[in-house]
Amino acid sequence: MRRLRLSLLAASVVLASSASAAAADAPTVIPAAAVHTAEQLRDRAMHDDTAYRIVEGLTTEVGPRLAGGPNDQRARDWVVAKMKALGFDRVYTEPVSYPLWERRSESGEIVAPFPQKLVLTALGYSPATPKGGLTAQVVAFPTLDALKAADPATIKGRIVYVGARMTRKKDGHDYGIGSGVRTQGPVIAQSKGAAGFLLRSAGTDPHSRAPHTGVTGFTDPARTIPAAALAGPDADQLERVLAHGQPVQVKMDLDCGITGQYTGANVIGEITGRKHPKQIVDIGGHLDSWDPGTGAIDDGAGVAIAMGAAKLIHDLPQRPDRTIRVIAFANEEMGLWGGRAYADRHGADVANHQLGTESDFGAGRIWRMSASVKPEARGAIGQIAKVLAPIGVAYDAEKPGGGGSDLSQMHAKGMAALSLTQDGTYYFDWHHTSEDTLDKIDPQDLAQNVAVYAAYAYMAAQAKGDFGSAPGAFPGEQGE
Amino acid sequence: MRRLRLSLLAASVVLASSASAAAADAPTVIPAAAVHTAEQLRDRAMHDDTAYRIVEGLTTEVGPRLAGGPNDQRARDWVVAKMKALGFDRVYTEPVSYPLWERRSESGEIVAPFPQKLVLTALGYSPATPKGGLTAQVVAFPTLDALKAADPATIKGRIVYVGARMTRKKDGHDYGIGSGVRTQGPVIAQSKGAAGFLLRSAGTDPHSRAPHTGVTGFTDPARTIPAAALAGPDADQLERVLAHGQPVQVKMDLDCGITGQYTGANVIGEITGRKHPKQIVDIGGHLDSWDPGTGAIDDGAGVAIAMGAAKLIHDLPQRPDRTIRVIAFANEEMGLWGGRAYADRHGADVANHQLGTESDFGAGRIWRMSASVKPEARGAIGQIAKVLAPIGVAYDAEKPGGGGSDLSQMHAKGMAALSLTQDGTYYFDWHHTSEDTLDKIDPQDLAQNVAVYAAYAYMAAQAKGDFGSAPGAFPGEQGE
Repeated sequence: MRRLRLSLLAASVVLASSASAAAADAPTVIPAAAVHTAEQLRDRAMHDDTAYRIVEGLTTEVGPRLAGGPNDQRARDWVVAKMKALGFDRVYTEPVSYPLWERRSESGEIVAPFPQKLVLTALGYSPATPKGGLTAQVVAFPTLDALKAADPATIKGRIVYVGARMTRKKDGHDYGIGSGVRTQGPVIAQSKGAAGFLLRSAGTDPHSRAPHTGVTGFTDPARTIPAAALAGPDADQLERVLAHGQPVQVKMDLDCGITGQYTGANVIGEITGRKHPKQIVDIGGHLDSWDPGTGAIDDGAGVAIAMGAAKLIHDLPQRPDRTIRVIAFANEEMGLWGGRAYADRHGADVANHQLGTESDFGAGRIWRMSASVKPEARGAIGQIAKVLAPIGVAYDAEKPGGGGSDLSQMHAKGMAALSLTQDGTYYFDWHHTSEDTLDKIDPQDLAQNVAVYAAYAYMAAQAKGDFGSAPGAFPGEQGE
Repeated sequence: MRRLRLSLLAASVVLASSASAAAADAPTVIPAAAVHTAEQLRDRAMHDDTAYRIVEGLTTEVGPRLAGGPNDQRARDWVVAKMKALGFDRVYTEPVSYPLWERRSESGEIVAPFPQKLVLTALGYSPATPKGGLTAQVVAFPTLDALKAADPATIKGRIVYVGARMTRKKDGHDYGIGSGVRTQGPVIAQSKGAAGFLLRSAGTDPHSRAPHTGVTGFTDPARTIPAAALAGPDADQLERVLAHGQPVQVKMDLDCGITGQYTGANVIGEITGRKHPKQIVDIGGHLDSWDPGTGAIDDGAGVAIAMGAAKLIHDLPQRPDRTIRVIAFANEEMGLWGGRAYADRHGADVANHQLGTESDFGAGRIWRMSASVKPEARGAIGQIAKVLAPIGVAYDAEKPGGGGSDLSQMHAKGMAALSLTQDGTYYFDWHHTSEDTLDKIDPQDLAQNVAVYAAYAYMAAQAKGDFGSAPGAFPGEQGE
């Protein structure tokens, strides 16, 4: 208490002088009234179903939202209409351009020695196979490192298969393995002369026949090969067939590829700040999804959490001091296109982006908070942590905060950022598959996320002092 | 003990006279030496992986086995070769003819008001839709009874959807709901003028996007309509869209249908009886599977359990008194074609079929035994139960035994039959879907099944006296 009183005193001194000049030295503080309101927001959110109704509506009325696909415009229109219906003060879009990749059809099979279908899905930016499919002998590697070390002579003209496995982790850190294989594997295989690339799906349910799509690391259309993911049991099957010791011929038949350039948009809705409208608390998720599912956990949930939190703040008797900005990002999945466009457009103004974070890890409960802020704002982060602790969020003061997927790009420009880590134990069971549907979301868990976002965003908006956002303020700090 | 001694004495008296004439009154008894050997078989089976290697080989080297499909002959050849390799005394096939139904392609979508794909799978004997698909308004019913009660005027020209749900049960009894909708629903809908039929998949995993196929009750090709099952989350989605209150247009695009007649075969392997080679203990499973999976739990497991049990009996120092017959039935899935052909061929000889049962409920542990036998054989069934009790099998003396799916047809002719009920808690999560793959089988659980089959089959083969098989011996007794 004593420390808080002193902090409040210090904060008022700071505010009496030029805020921007003095901010570097004075501790940032969240006023007691704001803490109290944040607690009320938190408690209200735990019984509010606005976010669940948003993700239900988005996934039901729009469904899958592949970037640039048939539902891209419909999804933007839906969010614009919903933000307006919720009473957001300002709703607008900012264009985002990117290569348009389309999936038309895909199939796979073992041709020899034991003919049978394989369940696979093409990866983002994969080119099509020749008409009628690509048939080649398979060469298998257990890990990405084994592929890296392989003699190109063993790979040339073959279909490379990498069988690395992921297991369930609360913080999902095995995704480093799976996404590493998926992004780097095809590039390395191509560089060594492979005809095609297959991986064991970057997923954690070994029993699911739903393969996990996701983007490759292909950047040069002249240097690509057909690339796809096998469902876990199909990867097992291929490995069993390979274990027989005979040459194994696999056919991949993919009709997909880049067909041009597309201009979509980030959809933005704001609760305008009463005192400092140009100072912004950034929250959001990404509006695009992969196409096999309806993008419920990835990332309808993130968009809904941010919108639900902003709606609760909107419903307070008066507007917060700073602006709460909800961004529904375009095309996160194929390379953070929306996040990069946002950072390109707003990076020069980064000092006005108070404290940001994006929800893009499903709909499990938030169990950990970490932050990348200036030292003088650690006390305020501690205040936020104290409000969040009763709903199960532990504060890790050692880890940096990365701002989430798209907002990592603003963080890289110097925006102070949180990481609000969700329980991702089952996230990679469903992520990027047909299984990413509404039924995977527990409304109570989603409400806890809204509680965290509403409470944090409000406190950040009311803080006396800033969190250290400034051009290049956090070099080398990467969170989640 | 006292009772057993008396029984043994009684049995020896019986055997001294004409066995067939006296059998009706004398208690059937399993000699102590046979019980002892059965215990050894049981214990050996618990550590034997023959069955697991069989189902692994069948599902890997052959894969899906749709009746009459491209793998039908390969599957028969595989089992014949495997039975010979295991040293079975006699291996042969018996032809089975049936209508050949093919699945070529299938897709579905909500056309209006919220366009998006639906994951569905055509049902057995469904005809194709017109080229380009069938689009019609959906009329929904919560249950089969509601469909039965519906005015045809509300159905004519529409796609009927029935949304009945199944939940997980150890004995799988909710399958009565799901299979009832799947078999009767399309027939009733057609009779009321529907254009097409959809059901919520007859399955128990509400989160799975893998739809459950299975046969309809269509028998007259002139009275059919396109019929398919929606995956659980897709059924949820359709119901949410319907709840908006606007007319919902769905398109079904099925390319499938009956293309002719096919002659496959039941594959039979025997361990020939030393004393009574024409007296037979029937065990088996069905060799066909639905096509989306590799038919591991339905019913590679059943074939493997029976073959593994017979192999253990084969490896004893001497042949059993009666013949152990393993039958890998043809086309169980589309109407017990193999089982009916077997009963047609062998029904007149039913009195020689000592005691039979088929494994066709997955690979979970057997937890219950029941029997349909003559009263004088109840003691022998009790002896079998006593050997099985230590591995978790409870004897329900009240329930009848049905002989399993295909062998129900021999039971209907008068064959004494057991039911060896497996734990089916998760069976309908995977049954008839792409998820029916090897990874769903726990090798230890499979071994327990083999232990039960080996011990029971051996004791039935060694019994002094019979179990009551005779033409028409068990009218009206239906088990599982």
